[in-house]
Amino acid sequence: MEKNRKGLKVIRELSAVTPWPASVTPMSADSDGTHGFWPAGFTAGSVSAAIKYDRADLMLLVAKAPSSAAALFTRNLCCAAPVMLSREHLQRSRSLVRAIICNSGNANAATGEKGMDDALAMANAIARELAVKPEEVLVASTGVIGQLLPMERVLGGISAIPCSLQHDSGIDAAMAIMTTDTFPKFFTLELQLSAGSVRLSGIAKGSGMISPNMATMLAFLATDAAISPALLQKALKEANRKSFNAITVDGDTSTNDMAAILASGTGPEIKAHSSDFTLFCEALEALMTFLAKLIVIDGEGATKLVEVTVEGAANDRDAELAARTIAQSSLVKTAIHGEDANWGRVIAAAGRSGALFNQEELELYFNDLCILRPGLIADFSETAASEIMAKDSYTITLHLGCGQGRATVWTCDLSKEYVDINGSYRS
Amino acid sequence: MEKNRKGLKVIRELSAVTPWPASVTPMSADSDGTHGFWPAGFTAGSVSAAIKYDRADLMLLVAKAPSSAAALFTRNLCCAAPVMLSREHLQRSRSLVRAIICNSGNANAATGEKGMDDALAMANAIARELAVKPEEVLVASTGVIGQLLPMERVLGGISAIPCSLQHDSGIDAAMAIMTTDTFPKFFTLELQLSAGSVRLSGIAKGSGMISPNMATMLAFLATDAAISPALLQKALKEANRKSFNAITVDGDTSTNDMAAILASGTGPEIKAHSSDFTLFCEALEALMTFLAKLIVIDGEGATKLVEVTVEGAANDRDAELAARTIAQSSLVKTAIHGEDANWGRVIAAAGRSGALFNQEELELYFNDLCILRPGLIADFSETAASEIMAKDSYTITLHLGCGQGRATVWTCDLSKEYVDINGSYRS
Repeated sequence: MEKNRKGLKVIRELSAVTPWPASVTPMSADSDGTHGFWPAGFTAGSVSAAIKYDRADLMLLVAKAPSSAAALFTRNLCCAAPVMLSREHLQRSRSLVRAIICNSGNANAATGEKGMDDALAMANAIARELAVKPEEVLVASTGVIGQLLPMERVLGGISAIPCSLQHDSGIDAAMAIMTTDTFPKFFTLELQLSAGSVRLSGIAKGSGMISPNMATMLAFLATDAAISPALLQKALKEANRKSFNAITVDGDTSTNDMAAILASGTGPEIKAHSSDFTLFCEALEALMTFLAKLIVIDGEGATKLVEVTVEGAANDRDAELAARTIAQSSLVKTAIHGEDANWGRVIAAAGRSGALFNQEELELYFNDLCILRPGLIADFSETAASEIMAKDSYTITLHLGCGQGRATVWTCDLSKEYVDINGSYRS
Repeated sequence: MEKNRKGLKVIRELSAVTPWPASVTPMSADSDGTHGFWPAGFTAGSVSAAIKYDRADLMLLVAKAPSSAAALFTRNLCCAAPVMLSREHLQRSRSLVRAIICNSGNANAATGEKGMDDALAMANAIARELAVKPEEVLVASTGVIGQLLPMERVLGGISAIPCSLQHDSGIDAAMAIMTTDTFPKFFTLELQLSAGSVRLSGIAKGSGMISPNMATMLAFLATDAAISPALLQKALKEANRKSFNAITVDGDTSTNDMAAILASGTGPEIKAHSSDFTLFCEALEALMTFLAKLIVIDGEGATKLVEVTVEGAANDRDAELAARTIAQSSLVKTAIHGEDANWGRVIAAAGRSGALFNQEELELYFNDLCILRPGLIADFSETAASEIMAKDSYTITLHLGCGQGRATVWTCDLSKEYVDINGSYRS
């Protein structure tokens, strides 16, 4: 398919320029000519339940045995029914999970009691099909807010989906969870540990990542490593801070955001405080950052991926405040879109972010080009700046000149297409 | 001029639907067939200094005698040279001011030492022309960040501007401070006090109000009331909180924001803790809110003015957080633009705002139409909702159901024109 080809090309190119950790071998889905293998112990399937799209819109990820699970959920107070149910199921199953069922096209958010009943019905139906306990099933949904799921069609899809389970279905699974995404996002890493290798695979979707209505950032990861739920949660939380939590498309936090990882335990064991755990955390962060960047690249209306780094802040929190404010500024994002080296907008965004600094100390770079020197001196070549801004991807680095704090956030441009996509989503 | 006519019509129409305080008589510039009279004791002039635009771009407001002054400045750490200088001059003059000089087309921001020298040179030149002390002059600039002022042309303009001083120059003054604004914003109120009437006039400019690079929200107000600088500052600060600080076009706080008021003292005296002071504060808030709404109406690419009110919050701070987050959400603003009753985006923005509530208690209204009832029940008429959203102006009211906190924020839609305007501003 066209979408697959475009996506595979983007993924291959990003992988080629990614500074992967030394212990890691990146494996894009087409590197072995398959549709993307899951780690040992996992299969996934997808079917069309005709919820909204004319394509597969139900995804099922299955572990052959109860697997350590960890998950992070949206902090939006208007969280969706599947988020509330999955939180509850993680507790009741003591984080030993067998399956994740996810639909696209409808977020099952702001749907009240009926929404909770529907999410539970999805878990119950999958539990029956797979002969597992309902609390061993996590449920996720993504799509429009405030509409009830067409449950007859959803349950019809669920009865058909077990027949589609396959071991090399990464891309198909990633396709089935897309909303306004333009290509499926699946990637695998092989990681060398002391006792052998493990694999880490993940699918993700975003598009208006941080957008409450349609997008909802979802990521489902799987590994064959043997690792306790508590240790897995620790690794996920830490990796998330610098990956999915460090991207922005439009600053809107979804009602349905969810990142979950399952570990089948068929591979080598990872213990707390071991060097293997450190390697695992590094690899997980690398994979999640990779998927996060793919989400930004595929952001609604996005044409550019820009890495915003703030250095020399009083502390990491200030650095994050400034980086996030720059990355979310509509004026910075439109200037990126217009390829206009309007550096005043970058420092002005930092100036209102709440981060402390003295404007006389600021230093600003686009890639390696110095745009602003201390004393607010800007005597760069406009031609050189324009050449950088014409690229699909570049870095903006701001030194605040007052400490060691550092943070990186990835963002995209704000285009007229974003307004088009979001001015008429429901209709 | 075409711009004037369009602006006068907008101003007349907004005035007609504004709930003015009982003691106030609104006076639009064309109501007496003039170009807008200033209160007794004030004149203003404007000339073209060819800084950037092919029209008047220097504005001078002059008080016949030292006048009580109060001012509020941007909190952006990257504040502009004129902001720093005006802060200093207010202190040195003990808030007794004779003139405000303002240029458009160049913000004199992020210009280092040279920028400070230039701002001071502007104050010195005006002081010489008017035979007043330099510290009795406030300086303001608005336009692009990071470029030095063409001082030869600026000083040429300053030497010519005293000849243009007139008493009925409100609209011309408002024209001279515009950047991407599409019409001048001038308005006058007459206020009945116990000892007679006073007038309150103001000009404002915004466009990308809260936008660091081009817009910069500026407002200059004048009154003939006799009021101490301290009391004037108190009135300005309180009125600002619910007017200029309660609007958003794009969430970007400018480097040059400034709201200043001068009181000539030729009219009745206003004492602390008096009922006259209460009336004055009400009238000032009404005038500033009126000007603030004009700024939103004329926001970059804006086609709609939407009043977002959050009620029933745990406290006013929570209400403000929620109202501001809704008003600034790109997804809410694009839905407003697309006239799509995508209410899920409204509650999702509230849900990520940091304000506390239980989503089951939410109630949402567009004008008087109930969109969402407690229990997340949405069974409104899409036709009725579409009719409301097709209007130029309407209200969105969200009840959080957990207290007495209340706040209102005014916002506009996010259109493709905004992307156009800001993708290529500098060029």
